[in-house]
Amino acid sequence: MTTLQDCRALDAQDPLRPLRDHFTLPEGVIYLDGNSLGVAPKAVAARVADVVQREWSQDLIRAWNSAGWVDLPQRLGNQLAPWIGAGPDEVVCTDTTSINLYKVLSAALNIAREDAPQRKRVLSERSNFPTDLYIAEALCRERGLELVLLEPEEIAAALQDDVAVLMLTHVNYRTGAMHDMAAITAAAHARGILTIWDLCHSAGAVPVHLNAANADFSIGCGYKYLNGGPGAPAFVWVHPRHTDRFWQPLAGWFGHAAPFEFTPEYRPAPGIRRYLCGTQPIISLSALQCGLAVFDAATPLGGMQALRTKSLALTDLFIRLVEERCAGHGLGLATPRAHAQRGSQVCLTREYGPHAPPLRGSLPPEGAVTALGRPGGGDSGAYAIVQALIARGVIGDFRAGDNGKHLDILRFGFTPLYIGFEDVWNAVEHLKQVLDTGEWQRAEFNQKQAVT
Amino acid sequence: MTTLQDCRALDAQDPLRPLRDHFTLPEGVIYLDGNSLGVAPKAVAARVADVVQREWSQDLIRAWNSAGWVDLPQRLGNQLAPWIGAGPDEVVCTDTTSINLYKVLSAALNIAREDAPQRKRVLSERSNFPTDLYIAEALCRERGLELVLLEPEEIAAALQDDVAVLMLTHVNYRTGAMHDMAAITAAAHARGILTIWDLCHSAGAVPVHLNAANADFSIGCGYKYLNGGPGAPAFVWVHPRHTDRFWQPLAGWFGHAAPFEFTPEYRPAPGIRRYLCGTQPIISLSALQCGLAVFDAATPLGGMQALRTKSLALTDLFIRLVEERCAGHGLGLATPRAHAQRGSQVCLTREYGPHAPPLRGSLPPEGAVTALGRPGGGDSGAYAIVQALIARGVIGDFRAGDNGKHLDILRFGFTPLYIGFEDVWNAVEHLKQVLDTGEWQRAEFNQKQAVT
Repeated sequence: MTTLQDCRALDAQDPLRPLRDHFTLPEGVIYLDGNSLGVAPKAVAARVADVVQREWSQDLIRAWNSAGWVDLPQRLGNQLAPWIGAGPDEVVCTDTTSINLYKVLSAALNIAREDAPQRKRVLSERSNFPTDLYIAEALCRERGLELVLLEPEEIAAALQDDVAVLMLTHVNYRTGAMHDMAAITAAAHARGILTIWDLCHSAGAVPVHLNAANADFSIGCGYKYLNGGPGAPAFVWVHPRHTDRFWQPLAGWFGHAAPFEFTPEYRPAPGIRRYLCGTQPIISLSALQCGLAVFDAATPLGGMQALRTKSLALTDLFIRLVEERCAGHGLGLATPRAHAQRGSQVCLTREYGPHAPPLRGSLPPEGAVTALGRPGGGDSGAYAIVQALIARGVIGDFRAGDNGKHLDILRFGFTPLYIGFEDVWNAVEHLKQVLDTGEWQRAEFNQKQAVT
Repeated sequence: MTTLQDCRALDAQDPLRPLRDHFTLPEGVIYLDGNSLGVAPKAVAARVADVVQREWSQDLIRAWNSAGWVDLPQRLGNQLAPWIGAGPDEVVCTDTTSINLYKVLSAALNIAREDAPQRKRVLSERSNFPTDLYIAEALCRERGLELVLLEPEEIAAALQDDVAVLMLTHVNYRTGAMHDMAAITAAAHARGILTIWDLCHSAGAVPVHLNAANADFSIGCGYKYLNGGPGAPAFVWVHPRHTDRFWQPLAGWFGHAAPFEFTPEYRPAPGIRRYLCGTQPIISLSALQCGLAVFDAATPLGGMQALRTKSLALTDLFIRLVEERCAGHGLGLATPRAHAQRGSQVCLTREYGPHAPPLRGSLPPEGAVTALGRPGGGDSGAYAIVQALIARGVIGDFRAGDNGKHLDILRFGFTPLYIGFEDVWNAVEHLKQVLDTGEWQRAEFNQKQAVT
């Protein structure tokens, strides 16, 4: 059995331990939701104050030159590039993940229309993050194409000659399962299919090698493992073989070859800059800059390899401790045990529905409507367990199960930059207490929040 | 002749004078570029610090609920709405002007395609802000439509049955000329044409009555007269008769009816919320909130009517003083003298090209290439004059002339929230000295900046 002392020993040996000091971690909180919103780097407060009080307030319009606002999206892109296996001048930080997906999916479909007009399908996973599916649905509708949603195990067989684009999220937001980017890309290319990889749950969390995998397009967000702050601008990468083939349709002035010539005709910039559109939110971009700077500090400590080693050790430990200490509470595991298939999060499950096994402790009164709108007896309790943990300062989140599998998800993200092994012990101790005492069944933990 | 004392007397009588104290105005600067980037409200520093240090750092993911991040775009939209003649829940603050234009132009073209598929043209002005033209060019290309660019005087005759959408910027960025929104909208509607109004140079600067003018769609930016900070999120308004007719194509999760149900199919939110797309940059949005709050403070002082009265008085004064004090230097006026046709900026001109009248003082050496890449003798001097003014702390900007008119533009914005009448006097005094002494002809003022 693993002990608290074992966990403390792991922290003492952790080469990445100094990175924790780069972050503001609130007192009394074990934060296992960095896969939803990363914690604030300490440098952000001063950086943002400088942007507001000096660059904006004092330099005003001149700061576009003097503070380098004008090429901040490119500079941040270059800072991020090595962490996702991209080359210099191949990435820009800009807009949102949804909008960047619209750009690259449009470009990919333009290439497919020219090279293989008979290809009329876009493939994705049914459990891809919904905004990706919504964007693809809208674009397919506009262009008369078909969006096909698959289970992961159906993808290989679906790579047929009628498919234009395969669009996947590298690490699944609901399960933490990770695709083999190189293998799937190769299989897609073998059938003439272009690939788009969403790195929202990968960038800064797991090794990514976009160029080595020969991917075609990629996007991702700045506010999860990159710690760029709430709604931080996202990023977009395009393989250089594609970049200059087409304009993307959001052809705003910052993607123009010479935006400050103010010419009426659009002339796209060469390279990745044509994936820029409008004027970017500089204050939020500057916060993202601080998030990326922490990764610079991680380089001499072992870089992504050290981060990955620690991330797997943290998630292994969490799985082991839950299984050792929380047995008998109906918890399952949605995240793959195989390291090669795991991102940096662990998703536990609880079954719901009329055939779910009875839960230990008293259930909500028969027929009572729960936060999820399901009759009491059919509730998994997962939502309330997460709320009870949050009340204790252990912050994870809940994702409702889909109807096919009847498994609700308790989701826990492990950011190796700032989470330690003792944190994992303590989180599981709280989970054990919440389950053993039945504390989660209090009415207060069944109040649905606007954002879950 | 107007005197400095007259200007001081106007300041003493100005009912809006207290609003100046809401802003950080740098020492030694007369800022006449609020039409490009507004100055920082004093409240921003504390607000942004609170967002970073409390909401993000302490509340973390919970702040989506506790700090109300989740509906900030709608709340800011409601705060802005009365200043542009929109109703409650008709506006959201989100994304960029370019992206919001893509949304509304797509929606307008969808309506036109359904109601009048024979209409294949989109009209705009040749001197519309370029990003608007670029977005329209890309969308027209994708849909096989024609973008027709006109001079202002050609618009009325071009409103024909083959036109789907008329897309105009209310106040021209180069000249400060203002369109009659109600009259042009009525003329367009009489021919079955939908209208899109870009309010980048109007919102917060001139009276706008979107509903009263019966406009169809509108967009605008947050970082000019709304003082939302560099790259502040933009806004979008759609007339309620159109809002629910179509999705816009940037169908991201924040425009979904229930984004946190994470369903794979897109179901657009009712109302203006469907014009949201991805997760918004909360820190930058919070700065915009401070910009909008200053307008709340303007309400008891007379609101938009008082702002407009002062704006016209400032621009009238500037024109009069330039004409009285800077005569004989080849300066012309691009901005209309008629109040009904003037925004809140004044654009002076200087002629360039081989037939330009000789300038007083020595010219750049014959054949020398100027900042604009034109041989010395053909330069208007406008760029260098603006640079010489900036060196003296009088910040305006330069916009190159188009080839047809051979008139370069010296652009000066007058934000009635923080510009006073003595500022106008002092700005003209500096301009007079720069011209009288020939100071602008120094080589240092002819260095081209990345952003002009």
